Amino acid sequence: MRTVTLSQKFIAELFGTLVLVLMGCGAAVLAGSHVGFLGISFAFGLSVLAMCYAIGHISGCHINPAITIAFLAVGRITSKEAVAYIVAQIIGGIIGAGILYLIATGKAEYTLAANGLGQNGVGEASPDKYALMSGMIAEIVFTAIFLTVILGSTSKNNPTGTVAGVAIGLSLTLIHIVGIPVTGVSVNPARSIGPAIFVGGAALSNLWVFIVGPIVGGLIGAAIWKLMDKD
Amino acid sequence: MRTVTLSQKFIAELFGTLVLVLMGCGAAVLAGSHVGFLGISFAFGLSVLAMCYAIGHISGCHINPAITIAFLAVGRITSKEAVAYIVAQIIGGIIGAGILYLIATGKAEYTLAANGLGQNGVGEASPDKYALMSGMIAEIVFTAIFLTVILGSTSKNNPTGTVAGVAIGLSLTLIHIVGIPVTGVSVNPARSIGPAIFVGGAALSNLWVFIVGPIVGGLIGAAIWKLMDKD
Amino acid sequence: MRTVTLSQKFIAELFGTLVLVLMGCGAAVLAGSHVGFLGISFAFGLSVLAMCYAIGHISGCHINPAITIAFLAVGRITSKEAVAYIVAQIIGGIIGAGILYLIATGKAEYTLAANGLGQNGVGEASPDKYALMSGMIAEIVFTAIFLTVILGSTSKNNPTGTVAGVAIGLSLTLIHIVGIPVTGVSVNPARSIGPAIFVGGAALSNLWVFIVGPIVGGLIGAAIWKLMDKD
Amino acid sequence: MRTVTLSQKFIAELFGTLVLVLMGCGAAVLAGSHVGFLGISFAFGLSVLAMCYAIGHISGCHINPAITIAFLAVGRITSKEAVAYIVAQIIGGIIGAGILYLIATGKAEYTLAANGLGQNGVGEASPDKYALMSGMIAEIVFTAIFLTVILGSTSKNNPTGTVAGVAIGLSLTLIHIVGIPVTGVSVNPARSIGPAIFVGGAALSNLWVFIVGPIVGGLIGAAIWKLMDKD
Repeated sequence: MRTVTLSQKFIAELFGTLVLVLMGCGAAVLAGSHVGFLGISFAFGLSVLAMCYAIGHISGCHINPAITIAFLAVGRITSKEAVAYIVAQIIGGIIGAGILYLIATGKAEYTLAANGLGQNGVGEASPDKYALMSGMIAEIVFTAIFLTVILGSTSKNNPTGTVAGVAIGLSLTLIHIVGIPVTGVSVNPARSIGPAIFVGGAALSNLWVFIVGPIVGGLIGAAIWKLMDKD
Repeated sequence: MRTVTLSQKFIAELFGTLVLVLMGCGAAVLAGSHVGFLGISFAFGLSVLAMCYAIGHISGCHINPAITIAFLAVGRITSKEAVAYIVAQIIGGIIGAGILYLIATGKAEYTLAANGLGQNGVGEASPDKYALMSGMIAEIVFTAIFLTVILGSTSKNNPTGTVAGVAIGLSLTLIHIVGIPVTGVSVNPARSIGPAIFVGGAALSNLWVFIVGPIVGGLIGAAIWKLMDKD
Repeated sequence: MRTVTLSQKFIAELFGTLVLVLMGCGAAVLAGSHVGFLGISFAFGLSVLAMCYAIGHISGCHINPAITIAFLAVGRITSKEAVAYIVAQIIGGIIGAGILYLIATGKAEYTLAANGLGQNGVGEASPDKYALMSGMIAEIVFTAIFLTVILGSTSKNNPTGTVAGVAIGLSLTLIHIVGIPVTGVSVNPARSIGPAIFVGGAALSNLWVFIVGPIVGGLIGAAIWKLMDKD
Repeated sequence: MRTVTLSQKFIAELFGTLVLVLMGCGAAVLAGSHVGFLGISFAFGLSVLAMCYAIGHISGCHINPAITIAFLAVGRITSKEAVAYIVAQIIGGIIGAGILYLIATGKAEYTLAANGLGQNGVGEASPDKYALMSGMIAEIVFTAIFLTVILGSTSKNNPTGTVAGVAIGLSLTLIHIVGIPVTGVSVNPARSIGPAIFVGGAALSNLWVFIVGPIVGGLIGAAIWKLMDKD
């Protein structure tokens, strides 16, 4: 039987989160004026879809601390592994944002202050100036929905597991289509931490929203799923 | 063998319809000016795609009274369950619209009167001012098509059931691409009832179209499917 | 063992082609100004994707005389069935165009002369005024590509048949993304005949291009496929 | 047991690369002003998705020398086959560009100098004027990501192989959404060689970037994948 080592899982989670931040935020920074919010939404969702099939069989493809914490809550991961996963995700998100910065500076007009790195925000830092309360509710509700798709589509009771990665990836596209105007959409603390460290300012001072909201939402999603589906 | 209780199915149908209304109508209200009718079409379809894989193995993921009634007509659900499903769907649609309203009001310029909640309409309330007769024909024909996809892709004679949720979700995207200019597209009474209760006015006075049309269309679709495919 | 009667297949092919013309051309006529050529491309492709899973297990979901003729050439269908399929496809295409006309006239500004029914054309009738020769080459090459996807993805040697409908549908989306500016994209005589009968004029006088091109292209595609893959 | 001859594989690789260049670059040249960078991104990705299911069971559907070289590095292909594959890919790319040129000239306003053939470039030849270093980093990183999706989704350890073609195709869409502004996106020497031969000028003098970058990136991707996943 195949055994996957924790260090292999660590690399997979680091790499997957790197790809999500580089490509999702990359669509916003490098291509946003060309592809619009719909194109950015597909970039985030297809990053997850691609990674589900690239590393899903290695680490489960969490690439998101809110998912790892929800999986811990429902007993699908040990706390030791969960810590390693979250560390890998945060490191991966930072490296992904760094590579994006490197590519972005190759355009003469690019500045970190003016163009950012796809960071999240509420209030004045929200794309359409949504208040903090709306942003927090949106992040909680969207992450809860995301987790029901993840837990349900990969449930032992669900015979369609082969297609779970498609459903999970496209549900993230869906969440971005609806939510980019509100917060830019996080639903993933690691996705927010990476860009915020480079951009600073409001991205850093708003960061707690994108740590608390997704974690709370993920736990609510896990609870809703448990009500419906005994795994 | 796994047994799913009726209350688990009730929660699944309530939650799934909540997600459909929140995310589908949410795309229109929060992001419509950014993502256009194509983005809204993907939001409705991907909501159903995501829910098919999240709750399909629990309740069958109807999240639409027209589907439940068509399933009753072809003998795939008992009348007791059908009543519970429809109640859950209507409650879910109302809660979904309520959460959307809560998020939308976080933008200073938002008003229910000016921006609505993604409600359906005909005549003056139709996005492109299509007459009642066009709207009714469109809702009947689109729901009939939708039901042939649902019944055919999940037929016992069909060996590709794993992918049914993709086909069903993307067929709803298709229906929205074509039909949003006509009625905003309902094909689902619960999706129309939720927003109409909050918005009132034409949304309420037109509501009968989006109850009668989808139910009639669903039954026609079931009849067409029965002509082609003995399940 | 299940037997599907020829009359069930006839209904399936008629209904499927009806859906393709109503929804594909419907996207152009009702929603084209909102969703653009990209939205129309998804509408055509998703119509086929949806029908593959709705009726694929009944008739094989040709809904296109060029496919039926290519299947006859490679021995996958009898000539008797092929004739029935083609008759059903042409009738379905005409009914689909008729239902679209019925819905379209519910908008006060709509006229058949100004807005058409999503008909195909070359020269002055080409969306971007491509010459006849370009249009003919495009229709031949696109249909040949389409047939290699259809024959390859459903080949006995191919273990991924469950997903064939996704590949086939999205390959039609691809062909429309590239080709709408050239001819509006037919690759399917039945899809062109339906609208042309209502619209007349150039749509009728150009019709031979969209009968000859797809049939020739389909046979070339079948020949390429035979070179690569002994079924 | 079925045996596929090398000449069948040669035809499949030639044909698949022809389709990728014709349809991907065709979307840019014929339809770019209508469908935007998002539409072009879907065209490239759906070309690969379609070909994965059309010829994947014949040749493995590399249609890209960077993939073939990475497969050689991980021992999934012999060097004799690799040479044949690469020759076929380059020939296919050139023929695909030639057919595109033939269709494009059917529009009176088209000129090779003004409209090109979807060639790649950096610096002044980059769509958004990204410097050489950014373009090189982007090509390396994107190809590395692409290869981890390809190798991971088709790994012997991965039970979801049926859906690999969807993940691989849509990951190329993702890469194009992010990267078209930077270089037009190659990640595939054969895709760049075809148009460059016709267009000449900067397309030819930049060509080395799109040969070196994808090959280096592909080998890095293969190395990352080996770290995570013992096939």
